[in-house]
Amino acid sequence: MQSSNIPRLAFIGLGIMGRPMAGHLLSAEYPLVVHNRSKSKADELISRGAVWAESPAVAAAQADVVFVCVTDTPDVEAVLFGENGVAKSARPGLIVVDHSTISPGATRGFGEKLSALGTSLLDAPVSGGDTGARNATLSIMVGGAEEAFEKVLPLLNVMGKTITHCGPSGAGQLTKLVNQVLVSVTNLAVCEALTLAIKGGLDPAKTIAAVAGGAAGSWQLNNLGPKMIAGDFAPGFMVDLQYKDLRLVLEAARQAGVRLETVSRVTESFGKLRSLGRGRDGTQALFEVVKSAPV
Amino acid sequence: MQSSNIPRLAFIGLGIMGRPMAGHLLSAEYPLVVHNRSKSKADELISRGAVWAESPAVAAAQADVVFVCVTDTPDVEAVLFGENGVAKSARPGLIVVDHSTISPGATRGFGEKLSALGTSLLDAPVSGGDTGARNATLSIMVGGAEEAFEKVLPLLNVMGKTITHCGPSGAGQLTKLVNQVLVSVTNLAVCEALTLAIKGGLDPAKTIAAVAGGAAGSWQLNNLGPKMIAGDFAPGFMVDLQYKDLRLVLEAARQAGVRLETVSRVTESFGKLRSLGRGRDGTQALFEVVKSAPV
Repeated sequence: MQSSNIPRLAFIGLGIMGRPMAGHLLSAEYPLVVHNRSKSKADELISRGAVWAESPAVAAAQADVVFVCVTDTPDVEAVLFGENGVAKSARPGLIVVDHSTISPGATRGFGEKLSALGTSLLDAPVSGGDTGARNATLSIMVGGAEEAFEKVLPLLNVMGKTITHCGPSGAGQLTKLVNQVLVSVTNLAVCEALTLAIKGGLDPAKTIAAVAGGAAGSWQLNNLGPKMIAGDFAPGFMVDLQYKDLRLVLEAARQAGVRLETVSRVTESFGKLRSLGRGRDGTQALFEVVKSAPV
Repeated sequence: MQSSNIPRLAFIGLGIMGRPMAGHLLSAEYPLVVHNRSKSKADELISRGAVWAESPAVAAAQADVVFVCVTDTPDVEAVLFGENGVAKSARPGLIVVDHSTISPGATRGFGEKLSALGTSLLDAPVSGGDTGARNATLSIMVGGAEEAFEKVLPLLNVMGKTITHCGPSGAGQLTKLVNQVLVSVTNLAVCEALTLAIKGGLDPAKTIAAVAGGAAGSWQLNNLGPKMIAGDFAPGFMVDLQYKDLRLVLEAARQAGVRLETVSRVTESFGKLRSLGRGRDGTQALFEVVKSAPV
């Protein structure tokens, strides 16, 4: 990638997050190659000018920067190092930007393997959900070499609003996991608070209005509290994904020699929701577990 | 109290919260009688025109509305029903406004006893801390008869910003306890998140900046997070008072037949801080317990 030329881009993983993110790059008139496990997800992007690639290796061969947005650590490993993976086309100067939320430790290992081929890996998990992806208001937390970060920053600015270089390889993933600790335990705070309000006979909507502007206030209270009250469990962010991320948190905590007692408990509660068949509900369904806890 | 006349006011309890609150009433040119266990706390208000009363009964005898701002349930009981308590001067039309944070159940009992004498009790606990008291930006959560609430609303507007009538007697206290659930468990979220960030090798200030604007955001993160990082444990809100309030939460939860598991645990952690002699630190000292939890 030479800074005087328009970089050629590839985007691998066209799910609920990746598709709109790739769409913003296309709208910004970058040449874009796309790949996804099921091709149908690429149809709309192809109709707008994106070029289909049969594999991650083929996509990477035609690109200066490869974006990846899949689900979990093994998915990223397959995209990078599988039979027709990105590594097959890795070469000096190629930059891979991984928007998936995966293990920070595994990320460091992937980065070292690509580095041996001259290719830079940036971990760049996002927060802000599908709304943030569609509106290009994502927060993007980036780990990896500063030089590679500076090169792709103009591209990240097309997809997100708050772009932070958090440190070396894995630091973006760890920052995302810190984000998930805050999100899930603050969610739990809202669940216990509304349980007390409702069982104590208060009007819960009036209660939220009375306290949300002060030291009790949070995004979770403002956004999930009213859904809990209304029994609206449509996802924003799904229980299955929160559970996956919290398992990554606990793995990272173990590796750092840290005990996160509340995170352990809230992870169990999300696991319970999954076992009740509610993995595809929004994370506000945590309220159902908390309010029905045996006394 | 007749709405056509300027009401005569009394303020009992001139601590870190009560003194500035009473001062705002004085600045608004209401006639004000004051009482406090130690008279020296009243000196400045007296120099500005307040009249000293030797007891709560004497204060109430000279007032249409009596404000109370003391610490705990037994303190309120003593002010209202002690030897020279407010009840000695209770009469039809008198309104008592209790700004202390105390038991919702005890509040209902106090209200019934005063009601038998023709006097109305409003529970009106506040949040916003000493800063809110000084700047008249308190949130005031009010329980009790609507009619009494309407009468004192202009007075509450002199001391606070967000004034909510939450429901019948005790509803203000219960709303305050819901507030304390949110405050303390969100604080815990910040503690576990920053523990992971720091032990995982991230720059914690950069981490807060990367995540605070999104779904992870809260007042506690913005305000206590930087103090935790800096090791600044000067109070805002003191551990001793948070612990007192959380015991009220657990009592109210028991009475409502509710189990609040995370609140139970965070209460234990604040108890541990007290046993370490840190009861007068700010609540951000919770971080010290969380980050040193044995693995």
